[in-house]
Amino acid sequence: MKQYQFTLGFQVRDYECDMQGHVNNSVYLNYLEHCRHEFIKTLGLDFSELVQRGISLVVIRSEVDYKYSLQSGDKFEVGVILERVSPLRYRFVQDIYLLPERTLVLKARVVGTGVSATGRPQLPKEITVALGQLD
Amino acid sequence: MKQYQFTLGFQVRDYECDMQGHVNNSVYLNYLEHCRHEFIKTLGLDFSELVQRGISLVVIRSEVDYKYSLQSGDKFEVGVILERVSPLRYRFVQDIYLLPERTLVLKARVVGTGVSATGRPQLPKEITVALGQLD
Amino acid sequence: MKQYQFTLGFQVRDYECDMQGHVNNSVYLNYLEHCRHEFIKTLGLDFSELVQRGISLVVIRSEVDYKYSLQSGDKFEVGVILERVSPLRYRFVQDIYLLPERTLVLKARVVGTGVSATGRPQLPKEITVALGQLD
Amino acid sequence: MKQYQFTLGFQVRDYECDMQGHVNNSVYLNYLEHCRHEFIKTLGLDFSELVQRGISLVVIRSEVDYKYSLQSGDKFEVGVILERVSPLRYRFVQDIYLLPERTLVLKARVVGTGVSATGRPQLPKEITVALGQLD
Repeated sequence: MKQYQFTLGFQVRDYECDMQGHVNNSVYLNYLEHCRHEFIKTLGLDFSELVQRGISLVVIRSEVDYKYSLQSGDKFEVGVILERVSPLRYRFVQDIYLLPERTLVLKARVVGTGVSATGRPQLPKEITVALGQLD
Repeated sequence: MKQYQFTLGFQVRDYECDMQGHVNNSVYLNYLEHCRHEFIKTLGLDFSELVQRGISLVVIRSEVDYKYSLQSGDKFEVGVILERVSPLRYRFVQDIYLLPERTLVLKARVVGTGVSATGRPQLPKEITVALGQLD
Repeated sequence: MKQYQFTLGFQVRDYECDMQGHVNNSVYLNYLEHCRHEFIKTLGLDFSELVQRGISLVVIRSEVDYKYSLQSGDKFEVGVILERVSPLRYRFVQDIYLLPERTLVLKARVVGTGVSATGRPQLPKEITVALGQLD
Repeated sequence: MKQYQFTLGFQVRDYECDMQGHVNNSVYLNYLEHCRHEFIKTLGLDFSELVQRGISLVVIRSEVDYKYSLQSGDKFEVGVILERVSPLRYRFVQDIYLLPERTLVLKARVVGTGVSATGRPQLPKEITVALGQLD
């Protein structure tokens, strides 16, 4: 079991399931994003405030291995670890576990960066500080 | 320019954009899926009929490199190539291009397999035939 | 303040917001649906089990008055009251309140019915019992 | 058959269907919105440009009667008529028809208004002009 920096609990909602009766593959990206945004709040960063300040945090790569399908009503947990990739890039390692057994549902790696209002790469100070603390 | 087996044109709808004014990262997976499902119709396979026959085509891995952000009203094209990975696994190589300039928006690789009603791996004959024709 | 039979707490997720920075009008229908499905579980009814039994609960009319826009991170509560409309139709009166002030966000009335696998109108016994207890 | 000011063709995408195998009730609001936004482009109004100018067009009431459920692959058409309700409010009368038979799928009435960056009610000139031309 990895040591996550942050975990967030969720429950599948019926509208998230497709005609196969499982959560649609795209919806897991929503879960992962929501977990990241709640996590960065604990670093002092609010995604919507960044948008208003003209700074966009953007996903530049995602890799997802789907291991098990979530279904109606399932409770699950998303864990996240933030890693430095380069001066301007960071990676979120994220896993989803079905509760209460903690069956592995999905493993993801999401690489992101920041972009200023003028389109230049720029990381918010809080991310840089958080990444610095990881060294 | 790759030689795609199938391409499908789309236009961004405003509800697909998030507070950054761009298409949300998860929505691209919807575009990719819709293109795959339209493509497999040309192979004689209807995703919803498969579900009714008890066969689920499932995504087991996705890899997406986001290169450029689509915005309100953008017209774009999704191309797809089907490849064999193993007897029971196939891969869709998919790219998205902004029109009319054909700017590369995204490159994706989506690996899938089939699962029967009893949970056993099983590919529909049409997929096996299509993959056989690729050899 | 109405006397709701059931209330459910939520928090806005960033992917639910559109380019105006507010929750998109269609997403509120997702919130309302999720609250209804959690509510009917307290009556002994699981929406996904009903689907497997061949019984579809369907929305035949929705009326929504949007009073206040939810934004990133907002916490809110959905309340629901179930009413009989006719032998085969029921109505959910649903309201959404921003927390903690309980500002009214939205008022909705959603009329539904049940349809059997053969397409005939049919209410599950649990709904009929619940409606009977309302008389 | 009503005389619509604008119609737009669509096709159901599989990810829009829920576990009942039908388009989820909330997704129809997406279809209706996309049709409205394409329609107002013909009046010279681009929704995303308005957002950038600080003007939000917002939905304040929606009424939807669901008559028939769309399924995987269905082709359909959305028609729209714009009506004046009051100096600052307008109504879109919108209907959806399954093609090619033109079976009525849904009837909707969506009331909207405009809000300036400072939160004051304000209609863009193009809407006022369009409404004026209706008298």
